[in-house]
Amino acid sequence: MIVSVIGATGYTGYELIKILARHPLFRIGHLVSETYEGKAFSEVYPYFRNICDTVIIGRDYEKVAAESEAVFLCLPHAAAQQAAEFFHSKGLKVVDLSADFRIKDAVLYESTYKTKHLFPELLASSAYGIPEIFGEEIAKASLVANPGCYPTTVIMPLYPLIKEGMIDTSFVIADAKSGVTGAGRKADLSLSFSEVNEDFRAYNIFGHRHNPEMIHILERAGKRADITFTAHLLPVNKGIETTIYAKTDKSLAELASCMKAFYKDRRFVRIYDNGHIPSIKDVVDTNFIDISLFVKDGKLIVVSCIDNLIKGSSGAAVQNLNVMCQLDETAGII
Amino acid sequence: MIVSVIGATGYTGYELIKILARHPLFRIGHLVSETYEGKAFSEVYPYFRNICDTVIIGRDYEKVAAESEAVFLCLPHAAAQQAAEFFHSKGLKVVDLSADFRIKDAVLYESTYKTKHLFPELLASSAYGIPEIFGEEIAKASLVANPGCYPTTVIMPLYPLIKEGMIDTSFVIADAKSGVTGAGRKADLSLSFSEVNEDFRAYNIFGHRHNPEMIHILERAGKRADITFTAHLLPVNKGIETTIYAKTDKSLAELASCMKAFYKDRRFVRIYDNGHIPSIKDVVDTNFIDISLFVKDGKLIVVSCIDNLIKGSSGAAVQNLNVMCQLDETAGII
Amino acid sequence: MIVSVIGATGYTGYELIKILARHPLFRIGHLVSETYEGKAFSEVYPYFRNICDTVIIGRDYEKVAAESEAVFLCLPHAAAQQAAEFFHSKGLKVVDLSADFRIKDAVLYESTYKTKHLFPELLASSAYGIPEIFGEEIAKASLVANPGCYPTTVIMPLYPLIKEGMIDTSFVIADAKSGVTGAGRKADLSLSFSEVNEDFRAYNIFGHRHNPEMIHILERAGKRADITFTAHLLPVNKGIETTIYAKTDKSLAELASCMKAFYKDRRFVRIYDNGHIPSIKDVVDTNFIDISLFVKDGKLIVVSCIDNLIKGSSGAAVQNLNVMCQLDETAGII
Amino acid sequence: MIVSVIGATGYTGYELIKILARHPLFRIGHLVSETYEGKAFSEVYPYFRNICDTVIIGRDYEKVAAESEAVFLCLPHAAAQQAAEFFHSKGLKVVDLSADFRIKDAVLYESTYKTKHLFPELLASSAYGIPEIFGEEIAKASLVANPGCYPTTVIMPLYPLIKEGMIDTSFVIADAKSGVTGAGRKADLSLSFSEVNEDFRAYNIFGHRHNPEMIHILERAGKRADITFTAHLLPVNKGIETTIYAKTDKSLAELASCMKAFYKDRRFVRIYDNGHIPSIKDVVDTNFIDISLFVKDGKLIVVSCIDNLIKGSSGAAVQNLNVMCQLDETAGII
Repeated sequence: MIVSVIGATGYTGYELIKILARHPLFRIGHLVSETYEGKAFSEVYPYFRNICDTVIIGRDYEKVAAESEAVFLCLPHAAAQQAAEFFHSKGLKVVDLSADFRIKDAVLYESTYKTKHLFPELLASSAYGIPEIFGEEIAKASLVANPGCYPTTVIMPLYPLIKEGMIDTSFVIADAKSGVTGAGRKADLSLSFSEVNEDFRAYNIFGHRHNPEMIHILERAGKRADITFTAHLLPVNKGIETTIYAKTDKSLAELASCMKAFYKDRRFVRIYDNGHIPSIKDVVDTNFIDISLFVKDGKLIVVSCIDNLIKGSSGAAVQNLNVMCQLDETAGII
Repeated sequence: MIVSVIGATGYTGYELIKILARHPLFRIGHLVSETYEGKAFSEVYPYFRNICDTVIIGRDYEKVAAESEAVFLCLPHAAAQQAAEFFHSKGLKVVDLSADFRIKDAVLYESTYKTKHLFPELLASSAYGIPEIFGEEIAKASLVANPGCYPTTVIMPLYPLIKEGMIDTSFVIADAKSGVTGAGRKADLSLSFSEVNEDFRAYNIFGHRHNPEMIHILERAGKRADITFTAHLLPVNKGIETTIYAKTDKSLAELASCMKAFYKDRRFVRIYDNGHIPSIKDVVDTNFIDISLFVKDGKLIVVSCIDNLIKGSSGAAVQNLNVMCQLDETAGII
Repeated sequence: MIVSVIGATGYTGYELIKILARHPLFRIGHLVSETYEGKAFSEVYPYFRNICDTVIIGRDYEKVAAESEAVFLCLPHAAAQQAAEFFHSKGLKVVDLSADFRIKDAVLYESTYKTKHLFPELLASSAYGIPEIFGEEIAKASLVANPGCYPTTVIMPLYPLIKEGMIDTSFVIADAKSGVTGAGRKADLSLSFSEVNEDFRAYNIFGHRHNPEMIHILERAGKRADITFTAHLLPVNKGIETTIYAKTDKSLAELASCMKAFYKDRRFVRIYDNGHIPSIKDVVDTNFIDISLFVKDGKLIVVSCIDNLIKGSSGAAVQNLNVMCQLDETAGII
Repeated sequence: MIVSVIGATGYTGYELIKILARHPLFRIGHLVSETYEGKAFSEVYPYFRNICDTVIIGRDYEKVAAESEAVFLCLPHAAAQQAAEFFHSKGLKVVDLSADFRIKDAVLYESTYKTKHLFPELLASSAYGIPEIFGEEIAKASLVANPGCYPTTVIMPLYPLIKEGMIDTSFVIADAKSGVTGAGRKADLSLSFSEVNEDFRAYNIFGHRHNPEMIHILERAGKRADITFTAHLLPVNKGIETTIYAKTDKSLAELASCMKAFYKDRRFVRIYDNGHIPSIKDVVDTNFIDISLFVKDGKLIVVSCIDNLIKGSSGAAVQNLNVMCQLDETAGII
C-alpha cells in the first residue's frame, strides 16, 4: 500500500519515514515539503542515505492524492484542516498528526487553538487515534486524529480508572516532562542548545493547549475530570514522563486489576504494579507506553512514559493506519 | 575565623571549599577525608590547583577541634551525629549538612532514618538552617542542621502561605526534579553516565526521606500539611525545580503579597508574580531561591528553583555560619 | 538458526538482543549471564518487555553448545579465549567481541593485553571481522574476531588509501572521540554521571590498546603506518567520530575514487567527497560507517563516524555471522 | 573605575557582567544593547536579579564615552572596528572581543574576514591580549584585541616551544573541541538543542578563521608553524579541549622545563608533566588554562583546556584591562 507524508522534514516526519522505510506492507509514495523541494530526503537527513533517498516534492496535493492510498499529515494546526479535508474528499485514508481533529467540540477547538474549524462534519466523523481505547472507531474511520503527545500519557492510564469510578476526579494533577523534539524542528533562541542544555523549566503554566484535549477525551470515560496539567522542558531529545496524582479509596490490586483487564492483550501497553518505576529510556524509540501504579494512604501516583515522537506521534500514527487497514496493529512498529 | 570541613571531598565539600577559598572572613583550616588523607585538595580536584592546595588530613578530630573555630560536617547520616556532638562539646560552632539534626522529633527521626538518635538534647537545642525563616534561632545556635535540598524548595514557598492560612493544606503535591549531584559522589551503576544520560525517572515514590522532613518543619507554620512529594532524577549536574500544587481561595495578588512581606529584604529570595517561570539555570551556582506564583480557578501552582548544592546545601551552610557569627548573611555567597 | 549470547547483559549484549529479536533468520537460543541468572532479560532491561522475555541462564556452556548453532561472546579479554576455544571445538560458529583474537601476532597480543594467548593456532585461523575488507576470510571462518570500535573507524578509511599508496604513512594522526558506552556497563566513579556530564577529556594518551590493533591490521594493506592515536571521552551515550590527518600528494578526486572503488556496492559504507561533514547522529543506531574526505595544501583530513555499539560492535558482529552463514550481510541490520 | 560593555547581552557579555559585578575595582557603567534597550539586565537574564539590575541603554556611544573610563566591545566583526576607533579616539581604554584587531597584517585580516580594515594604524598599535606572552605591550596599550578562543589554546602552549626550537614546526596538528556557547547567542537551526544534543561533529574543515590567527601570532615566536587546525562542536555549554600533535626530538623534561620557565609565576597557567590529563571541568568557570605534556617515540602530544567564555574571552578581557590599568592581573577573576 502506497502511503505519502505531507510535511515530511520535521521530527515527526523523520520518525515516520524511519518506520515506513522498513514497514512490511506500506511503501513510501511521496514526501512533501515546500522548504526542501527537489532535495533527496537523505540530503536533508544524511542518516537516511541508502535507506530513503526519495526526492522530496513540493505542495502538489493532486499528484499525491492520485498516486497514494493513504497520507500522513505533519502540518501546522489550521493548515492541516485544509489538507485533511482535501485528501479525505479524494478517498484516501488520512492520519492527521496535528490538533485539528482531536477536539470534537468545534467551539472548544476554536477557543483552544484560536482558529475557526472549517469542517465540523468531518470533525464529528473523525476518530481519536488511541487504538487501545477507540480501536473500533479507528477501524471504521477514514480520518483519524493522532493525539497530542502529552494527552496520550494522561488519557491512557486514567481512562479505565475513570470509567470504573476508581479515582476522585475532582482534583487530579498531571506533572509532565518532555524532551525537546516535542517543540518541533525550528530556529528558536529559547530552544537553542546553550539555552536548554543543563536547564529544566516548566512552561505554559495553566495554559497548555493539551490540557483541554485530555479533559475532553477523558470525559468519554463517563465523568469529567478536573486535571491540572503542567508541561516541563527536559534537556533530552525524546521521551515524556508524566507523574499523575489523584485521591483514591481503592487498593493497588484493584486499580491494577482494572487497568490490566481494560488493556488485556494490547501489545504496546506495559503495566506494572510491583514497584517498578519506568524511565523514558525504557520506551524511547519504541511504540510502548509504560504505566506503573503506586498507592498509599488514599493517594494514587501513576508514572506514565512514552517516546513523544513514537507512541506520542509517529508510531501511533502508523499503528492507527495499520488498524484502519485491518492489519495487525503492530506491523512495522514492534 | 578558622573553619574546617569534615568529609571534604564529596560534592558538598567541593562547593564549600569553592566558597570558603574566597570568603572575606572565613579561612580554611583543616580538610578531613579518610579516603584522600595526605593528598592535596587540588590533587583530588585539579579544578582547585592554585586556589586550594591544602593537604587533606585523616580523621583527627582532636586536632581539628583544637585548631578551628567552626566546622562543617559533610558526613553520612548516623556518623554525623557523633562528630556533631564531639565538636559541639569542644565549643566549636557546628553546621551539619546531614539529616541527623533536621528532625527535632527523635521518634520521627528514627522511623525515617532507621537509626537511633543518640543525642536528643542536642537535637532539641539545634536550629533548622533556613535563615529566612528561623534566623533568630540560628543566630543563637551553636549547632545548625542544614536542611535537605528538596525540603528547602518546598518549605520556603509554603511556610508563609500556611502561616497565613492561604492554601488548602489537605492535599498538597510537590513534584520535584533534581540534578544528579544530589545523590552524592560515588560509584553506583544506577548513577553511571550511560544509565542516566538522556533518561529521566522518578524514584522513591511515597518513600523519600525528605517527605517527613518537609511536613515536620512546615508544621511550625501552624498547620500540618498533607504533602505528597515525588523526587525525580534529572540528567543534569545541578539544580532542583519543584512544581507545587494546592487549592486556594486567594488571589495571586494576595498570595504574592503574603510571600513578599514575609521575605522582605531577604537578599536570596527572589519572588515573581508576573508570569515569569524560573528555570534552574537562573539559580545554579548561586545561593538564590527563585519562586514564582500562578493562580487559576482556585488552584495555586508554585515553581521553586534552587541549586541543590548551593542553597540546597553548601551555600546555605555558609549562610548559616555567617548568621551564627553575626556577620552579613551574604558574606562570601553573593 | 539458533544463536546464543554469552555475557548478554552488558551494552553490547543489549544491542545484540535488540537486533536478534527482529532478525529474519536468527532466533535467540540462550542468554548467559552469571550476574543475572534466573532473571528474565526484560527484568534487567525493562525496555525489552514484550520483546525479549527470555530467562537468563548461568554459565552452562555445555547446554548452550548443545542447543545452539552459533554464539556471540561478550566476555572480558582472557575469559573470552577460553569460551571461544570451547564453542569452536564443539563446532559452533563463534563471533568473539573481545580483543582476544584480533591481533594475530601472539607476541603483540601478549604485550598489548598483558595476557598469554593460550590458543595460537585458533588465533592464526580466525578472521578479523570487517566484512568490507576481509569478507572472503570471514565467509570461510568458524571463528571471527570482532574489531575494536576505534580501530574500525581508522582501518576502514585508511586501508584502501594505504593499499594504493595514496598517503604518507610516516606520521598519521587519529584523534577519536567516543560516547561513554564504549567503556562498558559498570559502577566506576570516573564514569559516573556527575563526573562525565558537561566534561570532555582525552585518556590513555600514547597507551590505548586499540593503537597497536589498528597498526597491526592496516599493515595487511601493504605498508606499516605510524599512527598516533588519541581517544577522548565524549559526554554522549553512543557514537565515535575520528578525525584523521595525513600528508598526501593526491587530489581529493583521486582519493575519493580510490575509496569508492574499494567499497563499491558495500551497503554500509557511505562515502562523501562533496564537503559534507558526517556527525555521529547520522550513524547512531545504524550499522553504517560514514566517511568524508577533505584535501588542501598537501594534507588530507578524513572524518569517520560510527555507532560504537553497532558498527563498532554488535551490528558488525551480526554482519559477520550473516557472512559466515552465507546470508545477505545486511540481514537484520539495515 | 567605570567600565561599560557594548553588546552586553550575548554570552560574552553575560560572563563579563558576572565578573564585573564582583570586581573589587571596576564598576559597571553602561550596558549597551540595541535589542534589549530599556530592559533591566536581570530581565534579559533572571540569573542576575539582585546582582545586576542595570537598565540597558541603546547605541548612545557619546554618552558611554562621556561616562566611562574603559569599554569592552562585544560586537560582530566589522562593526567592532568602528566602535573601537570611536572610543579610542575619546581616550577610553578599549578591550575588543572581536577579531578586528587580532591580525596585525591588514591584508591577512581582509582575506580572512572578507572585510576591509578601516584603521590600519590603530591595528598596528593595538596589542594582542595574552598577558602571559605580550604583557608588556598590553600594559602600554590603549586598545587590546582579545584573542579568539581556539587560538588561546594553541598559542599559549606552542609559543615557548617554538621560541626555543623544541618542536618540528613543519606539520603541527591542533584538533579542538568546543562547547556550543562559542557559536554565540542566536536562533539557528543547526545550533538548536535537538540538533546538537547527543551529537558531535567537526566544522569548517580547512576553513576556520582562527587558523590564520594562530599561525600569525605564533610567528612572533620566531618561526612560522604549519598548523592544521580542526574545530569540533561539543554537546556541552562551555569549555575547549585542544589536542595538539607535533614531532619533537626533545624529552618531556626539556619541554616541560621550557614551558614552566616561560610561564613562571603566572597564576593562570597550570602546567602538568606528570601524566595528569586535564579535562574541561577543571577549568570551566575559571580563567585558568591547563596544559599537559606527553612525549613518546619522538612525538609530542599537548592537551590544552580553557573555558571558551572565560580565558577564551571575558575572563581574559578583564585580565587584559587589569594589566592595562596596572592592577594585579588576577583582580576579580581568581
